[in-house]
Amino acid sequence: MKQEELKKLVGEKAVDWVHNDMIVGLGTGSTVKYMVTALAQKIKTEHLEITGVVTSARTAEQARSLGIRLKSVDEVDHIDLTIDGADEVSADYQGIKGGGAALLFEKIVATNSRKNIWIVDQSKLVKQLGAFPLPVEVIPYGSQQLLTRFAAKGFHPSFRLTSDGQKVKTDSDNFIIDLHLGEITAPAEMATYLKQQVGVVEQGLFLDTVNTVIAGFDDGPRVFEVR
Amino acid sequence: MKQEELKKLVGEKAVDWVHNDMIVGLGTGSTVKYMVTALAQKIKTEHLEITGVVTSARTAEQARSLGIRLKSVDEVDHIDLTIDGADEVSADYQGIKGGGAALLFEKIVATNSRKNIWIVDQSKLVKQLGAFPLPVEVIPYGSQQLLTRFAAKGFHPSFRLTSDGQKVKTDSDNFIIDLHLGEITAPAEMATYLKQQVGVVEQGLFLDTVNTVIAGFDDGPRVFEVR
Repeated sequence: MKQEELKKLVGEKAVDWVHNDMIVGLGTGSTVKYMVTALAQKIKTEHLEITGVVTSARTAEQARSLGIRLKSVDEVDHIDLTIDGADEVSADYQGIKGGGAALLFEKIVATNSRKNIWIVDQSKLVKQLGAFPLPVEVIPYGSQQLLTRFAAKGFHPSFRLTSDGQKVKTDSDNFIIDLHLGEITAPAEMATYLKQQVGVVEQGLFLDTVNTVIAGFDDGPRVFEVR
Repeated sequence: MKQEELKKLVGEKAVDWVHNDMIVGLGTGSTVKYMVTALAQKIKTEHLEITGVVTSARTAEQARSLGIRLKSVDEVDHIDLTIDGADEVSADYQGIKGGGAALLFEKIVATNSRKNIWIVDQSKLVKQLGAFPLPVEVIPYGSQQLLTRFAAKGFHPSFRLTSDGQKVKTDSDNFIIDLHLGEITAPAEMATYLKQQVGVVEQGLFLDTVNTVIAGFDDGPRVFEVR
């Protein structure tokens, strides 16, 4: 099965976890896009009262255009469930996110959610994290100094650039530094180290976060209940 | 002596540490303002080549108007010396900064400086930190949830407001939450805890940072060489 087809199937599968009156965090990315479309369909068909909490301007735009009612994370007193993608999921269900540059708001919403579901195609499942570059969201002022420091640590950092060579700006007007680590043998230590650095706003390791992974395989979506 | 007079005297004293060809970090605040004025005077009188690195739009404006050459922290390969104020300095020379809402850029510049000098009047010297509210710079999205979490921890948090009741916006367009802790018995643990929270960009504890404190007393500035 083609990758797009796998993404579509897991996106559609994920909305099985959404029930009436839920407040649902809506992630960001190509797989989530299918989920949001399926969710809007389900809300209409089943006449559900659902409130969405978005993680990016991009998803907000899509959800709004499909008639999903939206609130900010600060306008709700809890989030029942967040459905988001992931760029890598390890054998022990730790993840890297941020390929879409929305890691900060994604982590803010995930942190405030009672349950987190990740939807991925099988290509995202890895033994160990780190082949995917680890995104770090940084304050622009001093970011060149941070890059130099990361390079000295052997992290092989690079600013993420747009197609026309400009530094990517996040929804919070920060930059993204991608760390080309190859493998991350101690994710918890790496996560703590990075977040402690002055100028680092957030980093893309999502540890002990996900409760359920829905992964698209050639024979259809498989569900992994994690914690 | 009046507080303003003490501030002026320490500000003027601090420029003794500035020598020709130095790259000097310029802090933010009412005491620093006197220092910047004195520095501009010294540059003119002694024909010095000095480059300033600023920590706020406010200081940039003052320094520029006085003809001090400025560069961003990312345009220099090092900073020789940073002179900044502090809101509280403990008996073991740890500090709280951020009363002027510039803690993030101040910490970015301090972190990239070979030497840090703090200039304060005697009222800022305390036995233990914490009577001064501890500022935390936070991403607006999710900040209400963070405030709730801090309140549950007993931190007595409040958003910093402008005189007309709006949430203060920092130079990075973030909010400031002030923690009314009364006393901070374990500053290092508090600093690590706060910075690790998702949505926290930086916090106002400056630990193991300052090398020299110049404090204004009634009989004149006293210099404390710390580390």
